[in-house]
Amino acid sequence: MTGEFDLIQRYFVSERHDPDVLIGIGDDAAVLQLPPSQRLVVTTDTLNSGVHFPVDTSPTDIAYKAIAVNVSDLAAMGAIPKWATLNLTLPRADEIWLQAFARTFHDQLKAFNMQLIGGDTTRGPLSITVTAFGVAEPAMIMRRDAAQVGDFIAVTGTLGDARLGLDVALAQRTISNPDHRHYLLQRLHRPTARVHHSRLMRGCVHAAIDVSDGLAQDLSHVLQRSQCGAVLALDKLPLSSALRFYLAERDAFEYALCGGDDYELLFTLAPEQWPVLQSRLFADGLMATVIGRVIAQPGLQVQVDGKSVDVKTDGFQHF
Amino acid sequence: MTGEFDLIQRYFVSERHDPDVLIGIGDDAAVLQLPPSQRLVVTTDTLNSGVHFPVDTSPTDIAYKAIAVNVSDLAAMGAIPKWATLNLTLPRADEIWLQAFARTFHDQLKAFNMQLIGGDTTRGPLSITVTAFGVAEPAMIMRRDAAQVGDFIAVTGTLGDARLGLDVALAQRTISNPDHRHYLLQRLHRPTARVHHSRLMRGCVHAAIDVSDGLAQDLSHVLQRSQCGAVLALDKLPLSSALRFYLAERDAFEYALCGGDDYELLFTLAPEQWPVLQSRLFADGLMATVIGRVIAQPGLQVQVDGKSVDVKTDGFQHF
Repeated sequence: MTGEFDLIQRYFVSERHDPDVLIGIGDDAAVLQLPPSQRLVVTTDTLNSGVHFPVDTSPTDIAYKAIAVNVSDLAAMGAIPKWATLNLTLPRADEIWLQAFARTFHDQLKAFNMQLIGGDTTRGPLSITVTAFGVAEPAMIMRRDAAQVGDFIAVTGTLGDARLGLDVALAQRTISNPDHRHYLLQRLHRPTARVHHSRLMRGCVHAAIDVSDGLAQDLSHVLQRSQCGAVLALDKLPLSSALRFYLAERDAFEYALCGGDDYELLFTLAPEQWPVLQSRLFADGLMATVIGRVIAQPGLQVQVDGKSVDVKTDGFQHF
Repeated sequence: MTGEFDLIQRYFVSERHDPDVLIGIGDDAAVLQLPPSQRLVVTTDTLNSGVHFPVDTSPTDIAYKAIAVNVSDLAAMGAIPKWATLNLTLPRADEIWLQAFARTFHDQLKAFNMQLIGGDTTRGPLSITVTAFGVAEPAMIMRRDAAQVGDFIAVTGTLGDARLGLDVALAQRTISNPDHRHYLLQRLHRPTARVHHSRLMRGCVHAAIDVSDGLAQDLSHVLQRSQCGAVLALDKLPLSSALRFYLAERDAFEYALCGGDDYELLFTLAPEQWPVLQSRLFADGLMATVIGRVIAQPGLQVQVDGKSVDVKTDGFQHF
């Protein structure tokens, strides 16, 4: 028998064997059991060629990102990654493409201790949908609507790099330093899902979200859902040395504030929890930066050196 | 704020409120709890324009089918439908299209007591991925690999109608009788997920699968996974009056055997369970037909009037 089944069987066999997967790939549906006292956490993201990644992006980068963006959502909830499904739409059954895609896809699953439990392979314009499943104890779940007035606002890693990486990928900007070029393209194509940070954040953070549409827009989601506002210190935004090297300060701020695809975690926590978290992160060689404060008055106030400034705060729009 | 979020919020708000949905649409991920002693059953299918449905298919038919094909997989496992996610890729944010799609989508979810728990709306060529979540008690799960030598092979409803409906939709065949035309198009665009049959089948069926790629191909999956063979009585295949009216017998057999998209349930059960199931189905006005027998010798033997015949048995291929 050739066709869909053949493809699935050859490239997308489960490489892990989680005892909680009672029936995996190969039946009409997967059958799963949850570890006792855990909740199921589910997220799904679609990446379309020419929309979410440039058309000439390599299959390995696409596979890497398809897992990363979904696992990033699990991390933002405080969940431990566990399973994934893959809906892969391809213009044709290109073996070389599939081999490269599948290898990185399985490597990424392995890196997060995840098992592939099902999916669908169809013909059509290149599109990848991953649905990621995690588990979490109820008390450890980080929600968007749990920010509290007085909380610090903090973010992992650095911001704006993926946006500058997109300029490079689309040849809209020339970066001569090969290390910088590599770094920025990696930040665009191979974002790091902050699972490690998320694990350390559990129990000492109020609200969390991942920065996929741009800091300003994602922060606004938290503020709206938590019915509060924020003061954001633009000059405190964590910027990479590459970003600072190539962009004037005002452009760097704009990229950091409105650039999408960074997949850092934005979170709020009580100020007295900050030293606790900082020491945990420091012990593991990880970073996070306080960039603002939650206030009662709705809306987002952006400041530089303590003075309010008027800036563009709309992030990446899919439509 | 406009764009992706706007679309999702306006058209894809949950209309049900399942107490097992702890966090639904609007956070980075959904958080769910499983009813005690139940297993989670997960399936996902992608429908692409021009591949899985003709390009001029109405948004209501697309929405109907996107839910039906996934719920059909849950039914084939013996699971009770519970939740769904929707990944909707659209060339543009067409309000009229979205309104029609969303109305039927929600109606279908309601018909199966399901709640929408998340998804993603993206720009690109029209494509719909639904992931459906059901629950089942472990003993009630119907697997593909559980057919036993001596079992009856049976199927719900009638076969081949969707294939003839496709001829009509693609204007490759003219059907003058408006009732027949309507019936066949409905069978193509609005398949009935056999949830009701599935509920009655629980506990008296060995193996089950839904007929999506064609009876012969789907039966082969069961036989391969169960390491056995089958004798199939071609003249016993249940055919609708419309199919019999328009097709010569040999074409009708081919459509019933190899036509995809019927979404009937194909299952095997011990012969002594057949009267039990029949009386349950009869009481609810439902039908199923015995069409063959499981044998030890591998492979599929097709018979007419007890004599072996050589027929084409390859179903619908996606590639």
